[in-house]
Amino acid sequence: MAIGTRERIVDATAECFRRQGYAGTGLKQIAAEADAAFGSLYHFFPGGKEELGAEVIRWSGRMYMQLFIDIALEEPDVVAAVGRFFTDAARDVEASGFADACPIATVALEVSSTSEPLREACADVFASWLTSATEYFAGAGIERAQARRLALCMLSLLEGAFIFSRAMRTTEPVLVAGEAAATAVKEALAG
Amino acid sequence: MAIGTRERIVDATAECFRRQGYAGTGLKQIAAEADAAFGSLYHFFPGGKEELGAEVIRWSGRMYMQLFIDIALEEPDVVAAVGRFFTDAARDVEASGFADACPIATVALEVSSTSEPLREACADVFASWLTSATEYFAGAGIERAQARRLALCMLSLLEGAFIFSRAMRTTEPVLVAGEAAATAVKEALAG
Repeated sequence: MAIGTRERIVDATAECFRRQGYAGTGLKQIAAEADAAFGSLYHFFPGGKEELGAEVIRWSGRMYMQLFIDIALEEPDVVAAVGRFFTDAARDVEASGFADACPIATVALEVSSTSEPLREACADVFASWLTSATEYFAGAGIERAQARRLALCMLSLLEGAFIFSRAMRTTEPVLVAGEAAATAVKEALAG
Repeated sequence: MAIGTRERIVDATAECFRRQGYAGTGLKQIAAEADAAFGSLYHFFPGGKEELGAEVIRWSGRMYMQLFIDIALEEPDVVAAVGRFFTDAARDVEASGFADACPIATVALEVSSTSEPLREACADVFASWLTSATEYFAGAGIERAQARRLALCMLSLLEGAFIFSRAMRTTEPVLVAGEAAATAVKEALAG
């Protein structure tokens, strides 16, 4: 039961962060959406909103990477996996009314210059994504330095496209970015 | 004098939005940083923070587009202009201690699901950037549908790379994204 409450708090906070960011999310709203007593937030996160925020960033980062790993295991090759990561993302962002995209990006932009513990949590997540994507591309036979550049471009395309898709309420940016990312990987494999 | 105060308010608000976003920016902080009386905010923006926010988004969008236009006029060709837009951006974000990047992106992610007037302001700015970049590429001889895809990818690469650069405190993502964008334009011109 105690574990269930902590998980509900983390899950509800992640949802709030995706939709409205860090500064716009209050602990009262989190408690209400998690169906948790307000005091339980401080029980599980004695450091308050900043400690909860750092935990949610790291947890969301792991969840989001798992999404990509699941797709990579299902698809026959790297190009197909990259393509599907973007088409799935486009489908999901549209299904949520253009509310749910990256669980980290909004907070990352808000906190990069205002909270060092939260910036570090975002930086750690991004570094883990970059390392994993680089290893994934390198494992498919792409030279390591190029694999890192590809990983950076794929992730930048995705995050940037999410910004345009959410504001403009269209999947076009994510779909176009996905085609570009898949083409870049295909060319790197052929070269 | 009245014009000066309004301009200082808009300029200070844009700076706060870049560094800490919309929800994290209070009217008291804006008044202090603009060296303006608190009441003058409501004099110039009777609709309060949301009206000021929408004005700042549109003003910042025009300023940021002008940066690109200035570079495009100085550089000898499209590929050089795209490359320099990113190298200048990398230099500027580093010079600001990784605080100042896109003036719109943080707010866009925060408000896309919470304020329809602010979301519309962001969508209008993004649409104007996309249209201008598409026209710029088409004017260089790239077929229009491809020019739009290139514009979407260039802007997504830039916005996504800013997220990683600010959180990770390195210009690498912006520089790598810039090389990819310039290469994509070069290939489109050659094809």
